Amino acid sequence: MSDAPARLILPVILSGGSGTRLWPLSRAGRPKQMLDLLGAGSMLGATAARVADPGLFAAPVLVAGAGQAEAIEAALPDLGSLILEPEAKNTAPAIALAALAADEDEMLLILPSDHLIGDVAGFRDAVARGLPFAREGWIVTFGMKAERAETGYGYIERGPALGEGVHQAVRFVEKPDAATAGRYVGGGRHDWNCGIFLMRAGTFLDALASHAPKIAKAAKAAMAGARRKGRRILPNAAAFAASPSLSIDYAVMEKADKVAVVPVAIGWSDAGSWDALHEVSERDAAGNAIAGDVLALGTRGCMIRSEGPLVAAIGIEDLVVIATPDAVLIVPKAQSQRVKEAVDALKGQGRDEWI
Amino acid sequence: MSDAPARLILPVILSGGSGTRLWPLSRAGRPKQMLDLLGAGSMLGATAARVADPGLFAAPVLVAGAGQAEAIEAALPDLGSLILEPEAKNTAPAIALAALAADEDEMLLILPSDHLIGDVAGFRDAVARGLPFAREGWIVTFGMKAERAETGYGYIERGPALGEGVHQAVRFVEKPDAATAGRYVGGGRHDWNCGIFLMRAGTFLDALASHAPKIAKAAKAAMAGARRKGRRILPNAAAFAASPSLSIDYAVMEKADKVAVVPVAIGWSDAGSWDALHEVSERDAAGNAIAGDVLALGTRGCMIRSEGPLVAAIGIEDLVVIATPDAVLIVPKAQSQRVKEAVDALKGQGRDEWI
Repeated sequence: MSDAPARLILPVILSGGSGTRLWPLSRAGRPKQMLDLLGAGSMLGATAARVADPGLFAAPVLVAGAGQAEAIEAALPDLGSLILEPEAKNTAPAIALAALAADEDEMLLILPSDHLIGDVAGFRDAVARGLPFAREGWIVTFGMKAERAETGYGYIERGPALGEGVHQAVRFVEKPDAATAGRYVGGGRHDWNCGIFLMRAGTFLDALASHAPKIAKAAKAAMAGARRKGRRILPNAAAFAASPSLSIDYAVMEKADKVAVVPVAIGWSDAGSWDALHEVSERDAAGNAIAGDVLALGTRGCMIRSEGPLVAAIGIEDLVVIATPDAVLIVPKAQSQRVKEAVDALKGQGRDEWI
Repeated sequence: MSDAPARLILPVILSGGSGTRLWPLSRAGRPKQMLDLLGAGSMLGATAARVADPGLFAAPVLVAGAGQAEAIEAALPDLGSLILEPEAKNTAPAIALAALAADEDEMLLILPSDHLIGDVAGFRDAVARGLPFAREGWIVTFGMKAERAETGYGYIERGPALGEGVHQAVRFVEKPDAATAGRYVGGGRHDWNCGIFLMRAGTFLDALASHAPKIAKAAKAAMAGARRKGRRILPNAAAFAASPSLSIDYAVMEKADKVAVVPVAIGWSDAGSWDALHEVSERDAAGNAIAGDVLALGTRGCMIRSEGPLVAAIGIEDLVVIATPDAVLIVPKAQSQRVKEAVDALKGQGRDEWI
């Protein structure tokens, strides 16, 4: 543990994903975090705004795919540095790059770029609550009360309290089956893993070296051979290629000893499906979330959005309808996780222009 | 009754409607009869082909709106004459114009331009069965066995047989309520009115003079003042404007004395809704009728058609989805009659470009 005076928290924003589950709005060239889904700017912009307090946070580090560099710099003129992953390797290697670019005593706040948080003040309170534990070498996670048996989320099992509003995390479960998820919701000891992490850079790198040494080694070599161009950092591609592709949950969280969880109620959503987005969208009296050129008659509980043609919806219920100039999606809200199947089918047909 | 030798039947094809119920495919500038809905050419073309036998039928007379003249002449190079209605006045005045342009002994076969008939040979047999009665001054109608309680159709009640496969028609009921339609289907004495009529021109004009004298008078004046340009006949607009707007069913059939009905089973459909069209379309094993760029996953009983964007349908059932470059319709099959509500709403919003 460091004796250095309290310093600014360094936000590390992960912008590696493309979010096929929000197809046809999200595309390879227009990833989910760049979309304005709630009419309040892009999710990336909202993520940066969440940590835009110069008294608390340093300018953010972005970790992103090389193809996104221009779009990110245009969206976030105040970013600190931009680490361009030579290839997508999931979150553990991405965070390793950022941790290696920082001092080992620097406090990292890892943030997905494509999640929604309704209560920003609550979010900052939760970070403040976890901070003393992160300083003492804990990896601090944040857990949303599990409201329904989501099988697409990760769950954190709460253990004994470490302090006011902070618990030891005793188990991580990624994407449980429906029966297990149902027990978690009923049991009251499991929270949704928000994918937000607070920890010293050194804490993370030590844990990575212990539990995922191949990633640690590849990331270290990639950063040792990195080129720099202004704010851009380009890790060595050949070295990074040696890294396994693994999430921080699988690589570290499920194995590390000192993991804490801060239970939160901050209006978090991973915005990972049209259904999830419907949950957090503003809805009319009939439960419809509507955006764009839409004519809805006798329609209930629907998510309807057009970025192109007029959409006329008559007498439909609980459907997702998303229209763009070149593609239209229709799927029942409860099946909106299946959008990936459509994207996979298009991929199989070589229809890259639509993906 | 005439003692003249048997002559060719004169087909009169009515092409006045715009078919808002097949919006967004049908539009003001592209009426339903011009659409290729089953992949076998336009319904107008199919209607003309149904009577293209020079041994039986004369070249057809078309009655259409002035805006359709070029499109019809391009579609039907072999038409006899083209009567351009100065304004849409429903079927009774339209048929009156055609009857006045013919000799009174000419045998008229009135045909909607936007219906489907699967069994053309059966259709011609039915016409042959009705012909002797039409020669004797009967107005001959054609009745499809009522298969379901359609409230959008007209029904003909069969009376005593006049001959082999020809009955007296004792009553016409336009658009009955659901309970009444249900009784008709169960009762077995009611047929759907196909909107096809066979009669001498003079028979029709006499009946019109008796039962709808205002229409008879206005049509007569309009034809007396008509201009001719090659095959085109342009009735006098001011005179025609005086005519009430009325269907042949209300103006004549419900009141005339000598009305016969030929029961038929000829695969007739008015193609008057997406649901009706689904009934007569080719369907896959899951009951989907699909046309255009459509990706359907786990989808059943749907009518999906694209003339523009890729449509990805996942896990939906019994829906109509119609996509064009500027408009997309989604409506449950059972509610497809409500498409008119959307068109009316767009009209109310002044969105003429979409209608």
